[in-house]
Parts: sequence; C-alpha cells; structure tokens
Amino acid sequence: MSPKSGTPKKNLMLFSGRAHPELADEVAKNLNVTVTPQTAHNFANGEIFVRFQESVRGCDAFVIQSHPAPINEWIMEQLIMVDALKRASAKRITVVVPFYPYARQDKKHKGREPISARLIADMFKTAGADRIMTVDLHTAQIQGFFDGPVDHLLAQNVLADHIRDNYSTDNITVVSPDSGRVRLAEKWAQRLGDRPIAFIHKTRDPDKPNQAVANRVVGKVNGQLCVLIDDMIDTGGTIVKATEALLEEGASDVVIASTHGILSDPATERLSACKAREVIFTNTLPIPEEKRFPNMTVLSIAPLLARAIQAVFEDGSVTSLFDGNA
Amino acid sequence: MSPKSGTPKKNLMLFSGRAHPELADEVAKNLNVTVTPQTAHNFANGEIFVRFQESVRGCDAFVIQSHPAPINEWIMEQLIMVDALKRASAKRITVVVPFYPYARQDKKHKGREPISARLIADMFKTAGADRIMTVDLHTAQIQGFFDGPVDHLLAQNVLADHIRDNYSTDNITVVSPDSGRVRLAEKWAQRLGDRPIAFIHKTRDPDKPNQAVANRVVGKVNGQLCVLIDDMIDTGGTIVKATEALLEEGASDVVIASTHGILSDPATERLSACKAREVIFTNTLPIPEEKRFPNMTVLSIAPLLARAIQAVFEDGSVTSLFDGNA
Amino acid sequence: MSPKSGTPKKNLMLFSGRAHPELADEVAKNLNVTVTPQTAHNFANGEIFVRFQESVRGCDAFVIQSHPAPINEWIMEQLIMVDALKRASAKRITVVVPFYPYARQDKKHKGREPISARLIADMFKTAGADRIMTVDLHTAQIQGFFDGPVDHLLAQNVLADHIRDNYSTDNITVVSPDSGRVRLAEKWAQRLGDRPIAFIHKTRDPDKPNQAVANRVVGKVNGQLCVLIDDMIDTGGTIVKATEALLEEGASDVVIASTHGILSDPATERLSACKAREVIFTNTLPIPEEKRFPNMTVLSIAPLLARAIQAVFEDGSVTSLFDGNA
Amino acid sequence: MSPKSGTPKKNLMLFSGRAHPELADEVAKNLNVTVTPQTAHNFANGEIFVRFQESVRGCDAFVIQSHPAPINEWIMEQLIMVDALKRASAKRITVVVPFYPYARQDKKHKGREPISARLIADMFKTAGADRIMTVDLHTAQIQGFFDGPVDHLLAQNVLADHIRDNYSTDNITVVSPDSGRVRLAEKWAQRLGDRPIAFIHKTRDPDKPNQAVANRVVGKVNGQLCVLIDDMIDTGGTIVKATEALLEEGASDVVIASTHGILSDPATERLSACKAREVIFTNTLPIPEEKRFPNMTVLSIAPLLARAIQAVFEDGSVTSLFDGNA
Amino acid sequence: MSPKSGTPKKNLMLFSGRAHPELADEVAKNLNVTVTPQTAHNFANGEIFVRFQESVRGCDAFVIQSHPAPINEWIMEQLIMVDALKRASAKRITVVVPFYPYARQDKKHKGREPISARLIADMFKTAGADRIMTVDLHTAQIQGFFDGPVDHLLAQNVLADHIRDNYSTDNITVVSPDSGRVRLAEKWAQRLGDRPIAFIHKTRDPDKPNQAVANRVVGKVNGQLCVLIDDMIDTGGTIVKATEALLEEGASDVVIASTHGILSDPATERLSACKAREVIFTNTLPIPEEKRFPNMTVLSIAPLLARAIQAVFEDGSVTSLFDGNA
Amino acid sequence: MSPKSGTPKKNLMLFSGRAHPELADEVAKNLNVTVTPQTAHNFANGEIFVRFQESVRGCDAFVIQSHPAPINEWIMEQLIMVDALKRASAKRITVVVPFYPYARQDKKHKGREPISARLIADMFKTAGADRIMTVDLHTAQIQGFFDGPVDHLLAQNVLADHIRDNYSTDNITVVSPDSGRVRLAEKWAQRLGDRPIAFIHKTRDPDKPNQAVANRVVGKVNGQLCVLIDDMIDTGGTIVKATEALLEEGASDVVIASTHGILSDPATERLSACKAREVIFTNTLPIPEEKRFPNMTVLSIAPLLARAIQAVFEDGSVTSLFDGNA
Repeated sequence: MSPKSGTPKKNLMLFSGRAHPELADEVAKNLNVTVTPQTAHNFANGEIFVRFQESVRGCDAFVIQSHPAPINEWIMEQLIMVDALKRASAKRITVVVPFYPYARQDKKHKGREPISARLIADMFKTAGADRIMTVDLHTAQIQGFFDGPVDHLLAQNVLADHIRDNYSTDNITVVSPDSGRVRLAEKWAQRLGDRPIAFIHKTRDPDKPNQAVANRVVGKVNGQLCVLIDDMIDTGGTIVKATEALLEEGASDVVIASTHGILSDPATERLSACKAREVIFTNTLPIPEEKRFPNMTVLSIAPLLARAIQAVFEDGSVTSLFDGNA
Repeated sequence: MSPKSGTPKKNLMLFSGRAHPELADEVAKNLNVTVTPQTAHNFANGEIFVRFQESVRGCDAFVIQSHPAPINEWIMEQLIMVDALKRASAKRITVVVPFYPYARQDKKHKGREPISARLIADMFKTAGADRIMTVDLHTAQIQGFFDGPVDHLLAQNVLADHIRDNYSTDNITVVSPDSGRVRLAEKWAQRLGDRPIAFIHKTRDPDKPNQAVANRVVGKVNGQLCVLIDDMIDTGGTIVKATEALLEEGASDVVIASTHGILSDPATERLSACKAREVIFTNTLPIPEEKRFPNMTVLSIAPLLARAIQAVFEDGSVTSLFDGNA
Repeated sequence: MSPKSGTPKKNLMLFSGRAHPELADEVAKNLNVTVTPQTAHNFANGEIFVRFQESVRGCDAFVIQSHPAPINEWIMEQLIMVDALKRASAKRITVVVPFYPYARQDKKHKGREPISARLIADMFKTAGADRIMTVDLHTAQIQGFFDGPVDHLLAQNVLADHIRDNYSTDNITVVSPDSGRVRLAEKWAQRLGDRPIAFIHKTRDPDKPNQAVANRVVGKVNGQLCVLIDDMIDTGGTIVKATEALLEEGASDVVIASTHGILSDPATERLSACKAREVIFTNTLPIPEEKRFPNMTVLSIAPLLARAIQAVFEDGSVTSLFDGNA
Repeated sequence: MSPKSGTPKKNLMLFSGRAHPELADEVAKNLNVTVTPQTAHNFANGEIFVRFQESVRGCDAFVIQSHPAPINEWIMEQLIMVDALKRASAKRITVVVPFYPYARQDKKHKGREPISARLIADMFKTAGADRIMTVDLHTAQIQGFFDGPVDHLLAQNVLADHIRDNYSTDNITVVSPDSGRVRLAEKWAQRLGDRPIAFIHKTRDPDKPNQAVANRVVGKVNGQLCVLIDDMIDTGGTIVKATEALLEEGASDVVIASTHGILSDPATERLSACKAREVIFTNTLPIPEEKRFPNMTVLSIAPLLARAIQAVFEDGSVTSLFDGNA
Repeated sequence: MSPKSGTPKKNLMLFSGRAHPELADEVAKNLNVTVTPQTAHNFANGEIFVRFQESVRGCDAFVIQSHPAPINEWIMEQLIMVDALKRASAKRITVVVPFYPYARQDKKHKGREPISARLIADMFKTAGADRIMTVDLHTAQIQGFFDGPVDHLLAQNVLADHIRDNYSTDNITVVSPDSGRVRLAEKWAQRLGDRPIAFIHKTRDPDKPNQAVANRVVGKVNGQLCVLIDDMIDTGGTIVKATEALLEEGASDVVIASTHGILSDPATERLSACKAREVIFTNTLPIPEEKRFPNMTVLSIAPLLARAIQAVFEDGSVTSLFDGNA
Repeated sequence: MSPKSGTPKKNLMLFSGRAHPELADEVAKNLNVTVTPQTAHNFANGEIFVRFQESVRGCDAFVIQSHPAPINEWIMEQLIMVDALKRASAKRITVVVPFYPYARQDKKHKGREPISARLIADMFKTAGADRIMTVDLHTAQIQGFFDGPVDHLLAQNVLADHIRDNYSTDNITVVSPDSGRVRLAEKWAQRLGDRPIAFIHKTRDPDKPNQAVANRVVGKVNGQLCVLIDDMIDTGGTIVKATEALLEEGASDVVIASTHGILSDPATERLSACKAREVIFTNTLPIPEEKRFPNMTVLSIAPLLARAIQAVFEDGSVTSLFDGNA
C-alpha cells in the first residue's frame, strides 16, 4: 500500500439519535446498511454524552433524529453528534430531520420574538452540518434559513397516493383548516385531479357576541368527501373543530391527512372521538401504541428517506422525490 | 478639547440611491434632515461609482433605495454605498428597502433553483449592513434570511385605513387573488371589522377542456364590495382576471389595494381598462406619471418610514409601526 | 426632539430564564433593577416560546439562566432569548451562566467524542451573544472556547472566606478528591494561609484483585481538618468515598466545599449520611428544599454576580472579582 | 449497487450566463463538452430567474460569464447561478470571469469611496464560489481580495505572440499610455526581446495655460514601431491621445494591443479614425459586429480558458498558463 | 483523456518548515515519500518568502513545522506556507505541530491577558488549515480551541514504553513536578502497572521566612525509583528542584521523562549537573548536539507521526495512536 | 450611581509594542496622553507574554507597533496585544502599523506563492482588530485586503514639503527607481508643481552580453535636480544604482526620499557612500544611531499619526490627512 497516491473511497454511514431508533432502523434496512453503533446516555444532570464505536474518518455521514417531545433534548443530542462527527473527520455531514424542529417559529408574529427556525439552521451549521434533509416543511421558506443544500422531501405525495388508492376522488373537496394552508390544499387538489378546495375562516362571529370565534367554511362542501389536510397536528383542536364545521355544513364525510403527528395531549382523545372516517399520518415522528386508535393510519416515511439518502450519496438526480432540490 | 475621554455623540445621516430620490427627500423632510450629498454615476460600461461628499465617520447611517426596474442596478448601487460607508467608518448601517428585491424567489419552487431572497440578505450583510428596514414582505419568513434585526413595517395598515375612510365596511368582503394570500386577506378582514373573506382558486376547468385555467371564486361575493388585496402587482394579469371573476359572480364593486406597484407592462393598460372602482398603491416603488390613470390612488409611505427611522435612531419602542419587531 | 444628532444613552436590562428565577431576582435586587417581564412557555411538544414585554432596543442586556436538569431545556431557552434580543436590536448581549453547561465535556477523553463545552460557546456566539459571564469554570481553558470576552468570577473565594470565618485554619489540609483537582486545592491552600494539600489517588488495588478501585490518600491527613474541595458535586459518589478514605487515614474532621451543587440522585442521601461536618455550596444552581439537609450551607452567589454586572455595564475595573478578566 | 461504499466520480460541468454565450460555447467545444442547458430569463421588473435543466449534484462546476454593459445584470446573474449550484449540491464551484468586474475600483482614490473590486470577490464567496478564474487583472493585487484560489491567466502572452508573429521586433518600443502601466510595458518588452519602453506623462502644460493637460512622451520613440499596450480600452480617449502624441514625436508606426475591449461609445469611432496600424483585442468581452472596424484584430481567449479549466479539473500543473497560480 | 468525468485521485504531499527539517525527512522516510521541495528564505528585514517548486493542486497536504526558538518565526513561516497551499488549490491542509506553540498561554491566569493558544488555533484556521495534528498537548482542552478535527498523538506512550523496557517497574513511583500535572502522572502510573504517584507542592515555607518557596513532596517516595514526568521542560528549574527534593526525601533514584525538550538556557547545564539517572525526551523539538549530555536519551517521534499521517490520508482508524480522535 | 441607565463615556487609550517605543511616546505626547503601562516579555523559548496594567474595559484602543526586523516577532506581539484587548472588553481596537508588514508580498509574482499581505490583514481581523491605520502603503490595493475601515495616511506629503522648503523646484525632475513606482513619481511631480518625471528601466543590455542588467534612464534628466523617490528602501541596491545612472546621464544632483527606511545591511554603507546630496526618511521604522550618516534626514511621522488618531477618536473629518478615507 503506497502512501503517496491512490483512489479515494466514499463510504455511507448512518447514525441515529435516541428519539426514534425504529425509524432509523427501517431506513437502514431499506438501504441495506446498519446504523453505526454508538454510546449515548444522559448524565445525572441531563447532559448528553455520545461516542461512536467505529471509526468515522472520511465517511459520508447521515445523522437521523426525530423530534417529538422533549424536543430540546433531541435537538441537543443531534447537535452533539454532529460536533463529534466533525471532530472525528467525517467528510460530509447530512442532518436528517424528518420533522423540522421549531418550524412554526419561522417569523416574528409580533415584536421581540425569536425566529427559532433560523436559529436551528444556524446551530446545525455551527456544529458542522453540511446539508439538511427534511420532510414537508411548515413553510418552504425555511429552506432559505440554511446556508447550504436542503433536500426537501414531499410526504404529501405518499399521503395523497393513499387517499387515491382508498377513496373515489370524484366528490373530494380538499379543505385547509385555516387561512394559512390554502396553498397546500391547492397542491393536494391538483394531485387528486383538479378537485375543488375550501378552507375554514376563523373569525369573531358578529352574530354571536358572547362566542369568541366562529369557524366559517369558505367554499362548497355540501355532499362532498372532505379531505382535511395539514402539515402537522399537535393538540388537534383546530382540526377537530374544522371537522365539526364541515359536517355541519353538510359534508358527506371527512378524512384527515397530515404528515407530522405531534399528537400532544389531548390530541388522541379528540381525534378518536371526532367523526372523521380516517386519520392518516406518516411516522416522521414516533406514534407510540398508546396514542393510536382504530381509524388511524400511519404510513412509513422510511422508504422515501432511504431513496433520498441513496440519491444524495450517489450524486444521483431523483427530482421526483424532492420539492425544490435535485 | 482633551483627547483622552469624552461623551460620544450619535448622528443620524440619510443616504439615497438614485432609483427614487423623491421618496428619500420626502422621508428626509419628515425627519427634518437633508439627504447626504454624494457623487453617483455609471461609467460607460455600466459600473457604478459612488462617493459621499461629507464625512460619515461614526454616523448612524440609513441608506434608502427603491427597487424598480432595472432592479439589479439599484441593488448593486445600494451594496456599493454600504461598502463605502463601512470603509469610511460609519458606526451602524441600516439598509432601507421599501420593496424587498427578489422577495418572490424566497424558496425553491422546483429543484436547482436559487433562493435569491436569501442571497440578497447575505449580500447586504457581506457589504456591511447591520440592519434591514422594509415594508410588507412578500412572506414574513424573509425576516429570518437576515442575520440581524429586521424592521418590518406594515403599509397594509395605511391602505386599510384609506379603505375605511372612503368606503362603508358593512358589505365588504376581502378577497385574495390566489390561494397563497388568503392569510393576508384574513388580516385585512380583521382590521376592517371581522369581515368575511374569499379567494380565487385557479384550476384547470374539467368542464372546458380547451381552456387551460379557470378562476373559481371560493366564498360568497354576491352583492359584496370586494376588496381585492395583494402585496404587489406586477403585470396585473392575475388581479384583473380576479376582478372579472368577482364581477361575474355578482360582486357589487371591486377595489384593488396593493402595497407595491411594480406595474410592469401592460399593467397600466390592464388596470385602467378593468372595472375596478379604485386601485390603491403606496409609493414604495416610484410610479411615474405615464403609469398613472384616473382611478389610481397613490398613498405615501414616507411618513411611516420616517417615524420608523426616528424610532430606530432613538432606540424608541414604536411597536405599532412594526410587524414583529419593536 | 431633533432627529439629526444627540447623545446616546445606555440602559442596563436584566433577563431571566425559567430555570432559577429566584437567583435572577436576587441579582436584580442587588442591582436595584427589576427583571424585564417576558412571556415564556413551552408548547405541547416541548418547543419553547419567548417574547419580551418591553422594548429592548439599544439596551445592554444581561441574560441570566441557571443550568440544572433538564439542562438542555435551559440551554435552548437561553439561546432563544439571545436570538430574540439580537433581532429586537439589543446593543450588547451578555450571557450569564453561573454554572457553565457541559463544562466536563471540555476535551475528547477518547476518540470520536464531541467537545460539547466548545459547542455551547459557539452556539451562544451564533445566537448573538457578545460576552459570557460565568463562575468557577471546570477548567479555565473553557474561557478560550468563546471568541470574545469571558468574565470568569471566582466563587471559590466566597467559599474559602466562609471556611476562614468558621474554622481555625491552623490544622487544615486542603484535599482534592482526585488527581485532576490538585491545582485547585493548591489555590485554596494559598488562600487559607499556605496550608498543606493532599489528594485521593484512585487506582486498581493490586492487593485486592476482586475490588476494582482503591482510594489511596496521597499526602498527610492524620489529625488534620480536611477541607475537601471540588468545583461541582453531581451524584456525590467520589466525594463521599474521599471523605471515608480521609477519616480512615485519621483525619480529625472533613468539611466539603463545592461551588456548584448539581446534587443528582442520590447525592443528598449520600452527603447527608456521610461523616462530613459541613457541606458548603453556592446557589449557582438551584438547591430545592427537598435536596437540603441539616449540615448543608448554601452561600449566595447573587452579590458577586450583581457587582460583576455593574462593573461590566460601567466599564469599571473590578479585577478582584474576576479571574483572568478585568 | 451497494449503498455502503464505492468510488467517487468527478464530473466537469460548464455553465454559461447570458452575456456572451458564444465564448462559453467556444470553450465547451475546446473541452469537448456542452454547456449545461438552463432556463434563464428576466421577470418584467428585471429580476433574474435561473434554473438548471440537469442534475448538478456533486459536479465540478465552472460558471462562465462575460461582463460587458449592463455589467450589474451579468454580475447578479452569475451570483444567482452560483447560489443555485450551491443549493443543488455542486461539489466545487469555479467562477470564470474573463474580465473581472469593477477591477478599476480596487482602492479608494479619495476618501469615502467603496472598494468595489473587493466587494465583488466577497459577494462571489458569499454566494458559494470556491475559486475564481480570470484573465489579465487590472492590478494583480485583486487576487488577494478573494479568500481562496484565483487562477490568473495571462492573455498578454497571446497578444504578444501575435505581435511577434506579424511584426519585426527590431525597432519596437513598448509604450504605456500613462504612468500606471509602465510595469506592464516592461513585461511586454521582456517578452518581445528586451525592447526599450516609454510612457505618456499626462500633466498640466505650464507653457499652454489654457490647455488643461499635456501628453509628454517620456522615453525615445522617434523612428520606432510603438506597441501601445493596456489591459483594457473603454472609451478609447487616452489611447488615441497617446497614439497622436507618439506619432507627433516621430514614431514610425503605432500598434495598439489590449486584452479587454470594453469599447464604450465613442471608442469604435475614435479608434477607427486614429492612425494606428492595427488594434488588437481578445474576446474576454463580446465585441459585436457593429463595434468592429477594418484594422481591428480579435484573438480568441477560449483555448486558454479551456486549457485552464481542464488543468483545474484534473489538478494538473499548467504553470505556463498562469500568472501566480499553478 | 475525456474532460467530462473521471475518477478523482488523492495524493499525499509532505511539506516542511525550516525549523527542524531532519524531523520532516525522517517522517518522509517512514512514509516512503519525499518532502516537497520549496524555496524558503527571509528577506533582509526578516519577512519570510515561500514558494513550492511543484504543483500542489488537489493534494492532501501535511505541513510539518517544529517550534523551537525563535518560535514566532516558525509560526509565521507555517502560516505563510498554509496560505500558499490554500491559494494554490491544495485539497486538504493538515498542520502538523509536534509541539503546539503557546500551549502554556491556554487561559487568562490574571486579568487582561491574551489566550494565545486559542489565537494560534484561529490563525491556522484563517490561513486555511483544515486539520491540526499535534503531540502531547499541555492541556487537552486546547483541542477545543480549533474549529475542526485535531489529531492528538500520545508520545507519553513512547516514553513510558522506554521506561518499561529499561527499568524494573516494581518500585517505581510516578511523580509530578507540580500540582498541575498530577493527572498526567496518574496516566503514566496506570501504564506502568498501577504504580503509586506523588507530586511536589510548591509553597511558601512558614518555617523559613527568608526562603520564598519550599518544595514539599506529597506522597511516599522513600526507596522508590521516582519517574519524574512532565509534558515539557523549558529552563529545567522546576524539574531539577523536584529531583533534589525527591532525593532528599529518600528516593533511590530519579528518571526524568518529558515529551518536549525546549531546553532553553540553562536547562542543559542544570540537567546534566543534577543527579537524575536518565533524562528522556522525544524530538518533537530539535535538540542540537550542544544541548545534549551523556545521560540524555532522545526518542524519535517520527514513526508515530508517520503512522498517524498515513492513517489520516487513508481515512483509517488507528485509535491506538490517538488520544481522543480516531 | 444608578445601575439602570446612564450616558456612555468614550475613552482613548494608547498601547505600544516593544519594537519602537519612542514613536509611541512621541505620538502620546502629541495627543497629551500616556502610553498604557503593560508587562511584556519573551519567555526563554521566544513565546511572548503581554498583560495590561490598567483596566481597558470599554476603551477606544489604538495599538501602535513598528515593524523592523525581527518583523515576525513584532507582528505576533501586536496580534497578542489585540487578542488580550478583545478578551478584556475593549470597545474598539485600531491597529496602527506605520509600516505595513509584508506589503511587498501583495500578489503572487509566480505560481504557488502566498499573498502574505492579505494574510496579515486577516490575522489582525481574527485577533480582534476593528480598524487599521497605516502610512504610505506599498500598493493602495492593500486597503482592500482588510474587511473594515483602513486609514491610509500620506507621509509622502511630509517628505515633499521638506523638499519644497529646502530646494528650488524649478529644475526638479522626479525619478522612479523602477517601472513600478512611476505613478508615485507622477504624484510627487504634481505636488512639486507639475514637474517632469523619469524612471529607470532595468533590462538585459543586448550590447553588453556579459553584463546581466542595464539601468536605462527613460526621460530627460540632464542638468536636473533629480528627486529619486520610493516608498521604502531596504538594502539600498536599486536606489544607489539609480543614483549612479542619473549622475552618469548628467543629472546635476540627486536627492533621495523614501517614507520607510528599512535599511537592512548594507544600506547605510551604500547610501552614505553614494553621491546623493540628501537622503530623507520618516521614522515609521526606527532608525538607530548606528544606521545614520551625515546627509540623512529623518522626519517624524508622530504628529501625523497623532492628528489621525484624534480624528478617528472624535469621528472628525480630516480628509487632508488621509488618502482615500475620511
């Protein structure tokens, strides 16, 4: 072996935080690799320690972490993993965040607020990340918060295909639960065959002075199968109110579809009690058994992540996987 | 005068690019200052030269530039002014961009596109800008593209007040010309007294196969005074189509209101020919005489800019002026 | 009020995270100011939201946060507060971390580890911090991790003064619980009047093959009042073992003194059961009632922090407060 | 195809701005590649949009742009292309600027001026450029404005070889048109066989008080074939005055040679009317048909650029191509 | 040879400053390569000039420099070499500093001091270094001063092996010459078979008021072979005083071992006169003939450096070579 | 004293490296301040230690260092002083380098060279410098190497005034000693009243094959008082050869004037032996007694530096002092 010259190798290595190891394992299986073994634990005062058990020199590192509660724990763990990879001479570091943390704090809603979604991007950069891979950003502008390539995958397609496979699209109306997701509803409507759209207008109701907010349905939903979509469902309040409003307006049925199932309490209680025929998520966030209910469907995001990682590793063009990056 | 110690002074200086000197002059008048005289010209090959005619050492600099066509000229001029201020020891440099350039390119719509709005923010930072002041961003997330304070002023309030002063709000419906501005319509509706909202859904019309796009009005507009709003109007195609669709749907009247009047050809022709009762802009961009028509109203943004500059200079809190920053 | 020129003002504002508001309040009282009111809460999925209720433009901001468990929460909260201050035009931001988080991970102990203490410094810088103020760093080299001024306060003096006031120093020996704190013991010994020092040498005991580690006392402690010192006590295992070893070697009494009382379980149980005469901490970390026990003494760090903040604000020289920075 | 490891590929891709596509095509032909197809157009308000039509992941990108008027357009277009390449995961990005824009603003001639040539370097860096390739910089110090490798090619050699091939060098004197290019004249003189040099000293003429400037020829030119050289010719005023002065002083003939033909009006008129025997340029800038005249010669820079790109791509050493970088 | 695509090569190149070319040559021999020839000299006013005589494009560069007096010369030379490599398109630059300069100034000992060890790390980064390789850092925290990978090699093992090979370890006690190196002594003690440790406590001696400092031996050394260790020996004062104190306390013999032999005057005189049986160094710093004496042993660090460079070049894992990075 | 708000003070502090303390003292006297006392010494291995003896918090720091041989020492000392000031909370740091080090290495003369003048600028920035003040840069483009304000003072005016005061300008010709300083000669000529200029053309002499270089005088010097100018004189070879050539060509007398007197051996010997009537320098570099000779004149730069520092401190405009910055 001559030390003077040679041909470089490239080597894909997958790393996983502790928030959702099942997802990383599933991605690994799809890629036909194994997750790199590591030591990871919290000290008694909560400080996180990470050490990789194999050499990572020169590798093309993909660091998968999911971001359910306690979300700050998982952010710090991923940052610390990236720092360790940088200092151990990984060649390229791609941070895989299926659910982008703090995505909702992407602007100052009022004065003297942070823009935490930008802070997150800057912290990954500072720790040593070269690239970010993520799924269905709350707003696509978050791509611009990172100073480098962002692979923005679309789970919306996975969800929409499930709808198309399981429902007749003839009388579907796509509904946004508020005024901010109407564009997203429009994209769904295109994919489902140029279907009509509607949305819920939350407003103070001038006719009922004692009731703070009314949910006005804007658009026609009478007799329609309403596909109520959102990028994420947290406590479920908005989406359940929207479901009720749609049914009141004469919708024949409601199907709820959302990429990210945050499902903070009392989301499961609310969703399982509401009259929606089916509630569909992906597993960008872990959905433990106790949060599941009969008419919930969880689609796996792992095949999409695996194909994207493979494409990035091989510098291949897989535009169909991506929104805005190939 | 002892050289050893003393009390620092602060000194507001206003600078203006050549795109719209009238706006800077109006701001200066409102602030009771004068625009700092400078030499600025293009060399024969288009290169821009700038030199300030007074010392700027230690000043609190506000560099106003408007960004109509040829927009790249005006961006470069402002960058060069910032570079000159930095090298001449200005203490703090605030870039005032009433219309944020390249705001529409705030994400990758498809793969292999730039995010030019982020590039603009980074270039101002690189040139030496400490802060940005702007009006009615295309998307509020652009605030997060700049690594520093952004004063985001709301001209929408100026426009809405004009509506309130000149029209009865009783039968107003606020209308977004497409699915992406519905949130903005909602904000207008609140300000005008919790009015209903509607929007135009552009879709391929399955009933008319030869016609590529149909403009479906979503929401009730029959008999309503429709206030059709947008942050900017460029060639006017969308907004004029929307006006027609609203009138067809039975709207009693249409008023168009938009902060930024880009008015590229054939916007003036289209707008003056359409049936809208009034078309309202601010002067964040210059609207020359030849682009004006009888039922156009242009409100001045200068008093708002002047109050904001004064507040920034004095570290005062004028939250009411700002969206998301005080 | 003329907008053109004037004399700048400087304005001290104190901000507090939610980890230990009592400390911030006590500092505020010492400074004769009040902590700036803010909204701070966690969303259902753990994301933190912060908003200041008063204008912070142009202020000299001091952001106090304590870092007990769950430590990653408090780090993120402080980072987000700094981001909000930066974007709201604070003039200078000093991060006050009485206990520097992740200080023990200040180097790679083995390969493929992070240097999390450096990562913490970089993240504060990235968020917008201009300066750091901290107390009794685990290793003084951490000062060099931050690219800017670090005010390193010495609580060791507060603790040592307490010893001097309450014990005769004639037969004191200062003891380090392991080989890494001997230098610190030497400093204590100087301050207590050039007293002798000793330390505990942890080693595999060749004579007792079944027992992994022996605690050899190196130095003479027979008949001495042993002041056993450390910068922090976490679960208390090491320090309690050291106490036992000293008493076995004939020490007349043991007093434990440590700046930072992390006191993770089962520290309180261990310490209250051990034979040490007094266990002394400061309140750089909150020590809730349930963790206290009869012979524990908690000295307040607030007066020291307040004097340091005052000095920084006034650009005064208070070298005696600082180790390595005035 | 196993995802775990493999051998990386490297892939040269050529990109071209819209300023001078013929040059990029000629370079491509020399390299035996094709220019990567892209969508590029200006919106109605002048904003530029760019999108590449093929995947650029992992490529070694060379982005060629020429910089004639309107120069700021072409700068912005190239910056936006670089941003798009960075975000689409190009591996390395080399900006090829045959004529470095704003090269003449490489210092502050008086107070309160920008140093625009440094700003240009910083903007390319900020956008994502790793390297710059350029030809005959106005001053070689501009290499130091960029924080990275600069490949500085010498077209002067191409020009000088043309002279040598077409003229007897026996009675050549190399002449600088002003005091700032004498060093350049010296280099030419060496290459043409240690020929003598002269220059034009522009000064107020004390003998002719009404005439602002006199052109004194310093050095002997009587009976000589004067090769009047410069790095760029803009409006041609200086060079034509120099030609006249040389002929007045008895020069037998004048040949003008310059790398960059900016040729702003009225350069063509002036040059075609002056008595120079031949005027020689390269095509670093496009010279359209209407600017050409009978005794103008345009030499192609494309072979030099192509050889340099090939060398950079292959990490080859082609020192002879470069000034100051191999 | 097609210019469009291909397989990249990697190419190891070794560069050497002028401080200790023999070490670089020895490393080169171990690697079976030659040091890249370069021109390097000082101008009359001390400015350093460097030029490489071969193309370095795309190479994996290892820049070896030793740092004896005049240390600032050698730092500047290495920085200038790194700058030249960066500008000449080296692919990766690893700075090899067997003795890290200014390692002792790794914190502020008092106020208003620099942290020069951090400054050194930042300057290498600024010049263009991607990685640092070093041997036996004064404090391991210095690893955290560099924003990137640091390969921290352990010559202590080389030294300890020499002891083990040449002495019976049965009655060895490892001794730290002051309170700051006790941890290091503990590591040695482990490697030599869990031997006991001791250290010298420097203190004002209360019994001898006219003598400023007393050297108290803490720990048992009577009848022991004391291995007195340190990371570096500069003027030798401390280590010789420690030797004397150990012999006075009844040590049977003293062996001195230190990685870095700075050996400033009068170190050689002192060490050769002291009663230590052997004094062992490595050649991380050059030890010229005139500084050597009979019972000095100099072990070569070159094989360790060569193996580490080979491992870095090949992205191999050689954890056993490294402390904290593999 | 209320801690909450107040009026900031500004405080000028002067610091001096050890290279030329007399210059700093003279500047201090002109400013009516004293140089801040500091501890500064070299350790035995050449490492520099610096500590300020007074608080520097919040001061406006001016750090004067001269850069004679050993120049790398003085660069490092100044960098370390800047680092200490940054870490001790100086508010603004201006580096005063009357002679900019490595100014001659401002470009790559051939391939694989550093651009050390840029490296120097970057290192000052990295250490913490906000501004640079310097005198008569070798090339004005070096201003663009620093990312911030550069105050470029003109000592040429001081020198030219001395000539005007002591010589009749009627028959003066200004002469550049080589082709690279002709522009500088032109500026001198203007200041002395539009005098003629000449220069020395170094070339291989085709008529004398055994003599490598001939010094051709280009321009008329017969009977003229030749003022031979340069920015710096190092070993004096070029300037003395030029003097001889001018006298051979019939110059009536030669006066040599240069801002920076580096005067490396054998400059003093050569200059004192040559036939120049007067040799004029400033004291930007120390000129010790043993390097002086009868017809040498040394003008003080201290008054110019003091006026510039005062202007910077007071944000005053003193354009006449500066070239390209006020």
